[in-house]
Amino acid sequence: MLATAKKQRDHGGGVDDAVARWGGTRGQWLDLSTGINPVAYPLPALTPADWADLPDRAAQEALVAAARDFWDVPEEAAVLAAPGASAIIARIPALAAKGAVDIPAPTYNEHAAAFAAQGWAVASEGVTARVLVHPNNPTGRLWDTADLNAPLTVIDESFCDVCPSRSLVAHAAQEGRIVLKSFGKFWGLAGARLGFAIGDPQLIARLADFTGPWAVSGPALRIGTAALRDEAWADETRARLTQDAARLDQMMCAKGAEAVGGTSLFRLYDVDDAAQWQDRLAQSHVWSRIFPYSKTYLRLGLPAPDRWDQLEAAL
Amino acid sequence: MLATAKKQRDHGGGVDDAVARWGGTRGQWLDLSTGINPVAYPLPALTPADWADLPDRAAQEALVAAARDFWDVPEEAAVLAAPGASAIIARIPALAAKGAVDIPAPTYNEHAAAFAAQGWAVASEGVTARVLVHPNNPTGRLWDTADLNAPLTVIDESFCDVCPSRSLVAHAAQEGRIVLKSFGKFWGLAGARLGFAIGDPQLIARLADFTGPWAVSGPALRIGTAALRDEAWADETRARLTQDAARLDQMMCAKGAEAVGGTSLFRLYDVDDAAQWQDRLAQSHVWSRIFPYSKTYLRLGLPAPDRWDQLEAAL
Repeated sequence: MLATAKKQRDHGGGVDDAVARWGGTRGQWLDLSTGINPVAYPLPALTPADWADLPDRAAQEALVAAARDFWDVPEEAAVLAAPGASAIIARIPALAAKGAVDIPAPTYNEHAAAFAAQGWAVASEGVTARVLVHPNNPTGRLWDTADLNAPLTVIDESFCDVCPSRSLVAHAAQEGRIVLKSFGKFWGLAGARLGFAIGDPQLIARLADFTGPWAVSGPALRIGTAALRDEAWADETRARLTQDAARLDQMMCAKGAEAVGGTSLFRLYDVDDAAQWQDRLAQSHVWSRIFPYSKTYLRLGLPAPDRWDQLEAAL
Repeated sequence: MLATAKKQRDHGGGVDDAVARWGGTRGQWLDLSTGINPVAYPLPALTPADWADLPDRAAQEALVAAARDFWDVPEEAAVLAAPGASAIIARIPALAAKGAVDIPAPTYNEHAAAFAAQGWAVASEGVTARVLVHPNNPTGRLWDTADLNAPLTVIDESFCDVCPSRSLVAHAAQEGRIVLKSFGKFWGLAGARLGFAIGDPQLIARLADFTGPWAVSGPALRIGTAALRDEAWADETRARLTQDAARLDQMMCAKGAEAVGGTSLFRLYDVDDAAQWQDRLAQSHVWSRIFPYSKTYLRLGLPAPDRWDQLEAAL
């Protein structure tokens, strides 16, 4: 968000670039380049005060209480709400003295970028910090308690709400642990900017100092609290995502792709030539995700219920 | 926003505490404890995509371009949008090696708290950083270019949109300079969380790294862009605030208070016993601001157009 166009790191999204290259209007494009649930949590009614007032402490506490219940957070762990998991990721490297951090690759690239920007080396040995994306993006790999073994261990559960039984949040309270939760992906409201850090109370208190008061907007407080209290919606959503992921696999495999990983929010395929697949899909205004480190990985999010035909036609 | 109730620093807002002590419902309370314009900028229509999608680069660039035009930002200065000025304030101390910072008191207390949390000493001599709140909160004091004299100089213009001719933004591009702008106060949308850092491109680039991508929500991008392009609303608002501030002074002075400073978003009064005034107003569900460092300062924001009667009755 820097005026002098800052080169953004490779990410999903960026449909405006695709529009510029292949034409069409934004609305014509089916954006499957992210892992955001295309059926968003229905927005509760917002009040003028949600927009006008400084977020109230009571509203902040209600959100944190809902988060504790939804994720079954151990009592000894602290919970911090922030304007997106990425806002927390950017500040985690400041929590410990610069050193070497292990970030098993391939994975979500903001972690390495944030550590590097603050003078850390990314390495696999002699490390004082470790970041585990759980399940991993894009592979879907899951981690175990035995992997939580660095003095500072960050467990990024941005995509874990589709498989809550695998969450490692029960181990969040231990010294040096931080579990990240994203609101935008599973609830399909990435534009609202809401995420959580759960963990070692001393680390979370320091993150809170970096974050400042009133980090989360009034609307996000209300929406997040309602969504995290709505277990029925979460259950239905998990079931629908599972079905839709299977449907996507079936369509892709029928065209010669091999499903090699992912979660029910995004699927990872191995194809002969990922750039060629991306180009072919883009000609039908379907935007996919490929990776600088692989010539054969193609990642697709799920189409909205009324947009499967467009994908079918593009394939 | 920490689960383990973190003691918040002394601030305006916090009407829920007043409700707990003096009764009434939140809606019955007239909150004059902040400097937020009570006539908010009218919300433009938001789209489902504003909430659902990761904020688009084009939308981010449109907001920054609107900010450049509105504040007449020198071309050499960089502009960063963030979820509230307070999110930036919390990170500024990390921009320079720890040292001593001059923060002329009394003033907004988040600056000193942020520097102290990151190991700085607050002092008036031998400093490597200086924070000038311009106009100052609560006194209304304005600063001059001669005051911009520390290696790191932060000019907090959170309340400067009522007196744009006094802005120091023309000097923002120089090495070590950062000018802060708040969206919540003048546009009356503090819950939306939007603020800006304008200044030395190297410092702003480092702040952007701390902030992460997609710092600002989709709705805040749309609302902020519309508001910053609406010069007519800003002009009308300045005129109304000036009138209302004069009306408030008149009412307060008739009751024995002396107007000693402020801006047209909040007024500072000298009274015989500020705590007693606050208590008396609170009994009529009017919430005011007093300060730990003064027994006689009482600060009042402006009532909404339909709530002046309640203040009149309370006085």
